[in-house]
Amino acid sequence: MLPTVQFRSRPAIIDLSWGHPRPDLLPVDDWAEAYGTAIRRYRSAALTYGRGQGPGPMIDWLCAHLAVTDPPGPRPAEVFITAGASHALELSCSLLIRPGDPILVDAPTYHLGLRILADHGGPLIPVPTDADGIDPAATRELIGELSRSGRPPKLLYLVPTHGNPTGRSLCVARRTALIEALGDLPVIEDDTYRELSYDGPAPPSLFALSGGTVIRIGSFAKTVAPGLRLGWLTARPDLVAALTRRGYVDSGGGVNHATALAMTTFGYGRHVERIRQAYAGQRDALVSAVAAALPDASFAVPAGGWFLWLRLPPGLDTARLLPAAEAAGVSYVPGDRFYVTDADSRRLRLSFSMLDASALRAGVHRLADVTRLAETAQPAPG
Amino acid sequence: MLPTVQFRSRPAIIDLSWGHPRPDLLPVDDWAEAYGTAIRRYRSAALTYGRGQGPGPMIDWLCAHLAVTDPPGPRPAEVFITAGASHALELSCSLLIRPGDPILVDAPTYHLGLRILADHGGPLIPVPTDADGIDPAATRELIGELSRSGRPPKLLYLVPTHGNPTGRSLCVARRTALIEALGDLPVIEDDTYRELSYDGPAPPSLFALSGGTVIRIGSFAKTVAPGLRLGWLTARPDLVAALTRRGYVDSGGGVNHATALAMTTFGYGRHVERIRQAYAGQRDALVSAVAAALPDASFAVPAGGWFLWLRLPPGLDTARLLPAAEAAGVSYVPGDRFYVTDADSRRLRLSFSMLDASALRAGVHRLADVTRLAETAQPAPG
Repeated sequence: MLPTVQFRSRPAIIDLSWGHPRPDLLPVDDWAEAYGTAIRRYRSAALTYGRGQGPGPMIDWLCAHLAVTDPPGPRPAEVFITAGASHALELSCSLLIRPGDPILVDAPTYHLGLRILADHGGPLIPVPTDADGIDPAATRELIGELSRSGRPPKLLYLVPTHGNPTGRSLCVARRTALIEALGDLPVIEDDTYRELSYDGPAPPSLFALSGGTVIRIGSFAKTVAPGLRLGWLTARPDLVAALTRRGYVDSGGGVNHATALAMTTFGYGRHVERIRQAYAGQRDALVSAVAAALPDASFAVPAGGWFLWLRLPPGLDTARLLPAAEAAGVSYVPGDRFYVTDADSRRLRLSFSMLDASALRAGVHRLADVTRLAETAQPAPG
Repeated sequence: MLPTVQFRSRPAIIDLSWGHPRPDLLPVDDWAEAYGTAIRRYRSAALTYGRGQGPGPMIDWLCAHLAVTDPPGPRPAEVFITAGASHALELSCSLLIRPGDPILVDAPTYHLGLRILADHGGPLIPVPTDADGIDPAATRELIGELSRSGRPPKLLYLVPTHGNPTGRSLCVARRTALIEALGDLPVIEDDTYRELSYDGPAPPSLFALSGGTVIRIGSFAKTVAPGLRLGWLTARPDLVAALTRRGYVDSGGGVNHATALAMTTFGYGRHVERIRQAYAGQRDALVSAVAAALPDASFAVPAGGWFLWLRLPPGLDTARLLPAAEAAGVSYVPGDRFYVTDADSRRLRLSFSMLDASALRAGVHRLADVTRLAETAQPAPG
């Protein structure tokens, strides 16, 4: 029998590499009930070809929700319902990117996002960053240089809020400066983690701050369930209209119609509040364990999302360390996966989403042991 | 409130233009129950990130099903679960087609399929056909000519079984000859209508007859419900692996995971048998009504699918006739939509899927009235 899910269990390893939800936080019974309610409420309208942009009730629901969480929220004509956030990125690239188009990307940024972008165009070109994230002025200079050399970039991709892998958010001043610096360059803002804010509200989205160059991608994978493949994007009405006119959407109708209707009958607010508390607890457990067991490592406490972006002491290379770590029963994603070039080889990403506090603590202890062994084994500085 | 569905109702018009299911044939209660059963059976495995190729239980189910309906059926490594047939076509094009790539298409063929192909490449080049469909020998010559002129085609798209719009199927001899004539040229076989065969089994698929150049697309939109956005394709294992490796699939996992699992718990066989009888009855009603009311029009009785491909008497142009038809309370799709070039202006497509027998008969009477008026109004042949 072939497997059912993407996750591959390795029982001997405490695996902090997967950005997957904790299985017991998935709303199995509540979702089954919501879906049944929606199908029985909308009947044939839930099962026939759905409206290409997304079903009206879902668009209304989302506009009302975003008006509260990221004011002022989009207008209905600025919303397109997708089959997940990854699909939103794939679809946006289909519209905006052709083979050979240069694409700017944050550094570091979501490694599989880089893969999706590279499926459509490239080269991928990292933007200049400093300790606070993307540097607007230096990015403007880079765009100018590229344009003068006949390689004007066609897009910027970033995860500015509770970022993957950094867990950090671009501050409001940088957001405003960035939008101004970019001029007409289209931006894809991957806003997957906004709802999982643990220490107060997230900063306003680039979409909310901008005049229309930003395509903002949202997801129900982290908040409800990835297996539903339901997400959305907000963008200028002409871009939404262009997506709706795409042959594939015109042919098949709304890209995840019945599931989108079901989301409107799901008790979203209460569920998200519950999982937000759970994931905040896991964040706290991981932060405490790392601070205690790896005192020489550095990190910023993530105010949201699913990841801790750890920097090991000088001399350690997280890609080289991985086999020893897995032999010792712990895994992570080496930092180099999140860079196009110039990786920080001391970085690694720890996911705190999938495991409970005691497993997280046990994993950190194994990682600390491996790190100490590697430090002992490395040649003394010359 | 924005609409929920794609269909736009025009109460004064009996609309035979939409290839949509009859609303009361959609399995509202049975599907709601099947989905709930699957979510409660697989629990977190139904809601977390699914396996990219598709969940094992669904792939096993589909292989067993196709082994009966289109023997010998694919091996598991030859199956990829998609978010609908249109998505399967979009995804296949993403892999195979680049801007500027010449694409061969059947003539006539599915008009929105042409749109999907054109989103990825083109020019679209119609293949030579005769009264029995695509002509293998002439197609081989065309491929040779195009290749010698430096424009080798990258793909052939066709709907060879109960085709849209023709309702006709390519005979087995032509299928075999076509596969031989095409050599290494990749083929996308849109096999959406196979299960809706009314007069005995459909011919074997090109996929089943070929050695591996064929990507065959299947759908649950016509058999269960389009709003689910669930489909599949069968292809060579290396193509399936390439789809699975695509960044968007690697990032989001199985493209319609929970819905795919639900299909394995749905009473598919009994449901399809029921709707097959219903649609066969609608086919019969439309065929009888057209034969009686439009004795000068010609058509082949469709042995399956949802469409009747009607040819009006000489001198009538179905695109020009459409406004008068709609004014008289009936609509259809003019034949020219299904051709890239050299349309047969006397053809039109009537869908018998969405309306019951009495509505179909009433629509045909209105069409016959409009046709007679137009014949009277047209200038006598000079």
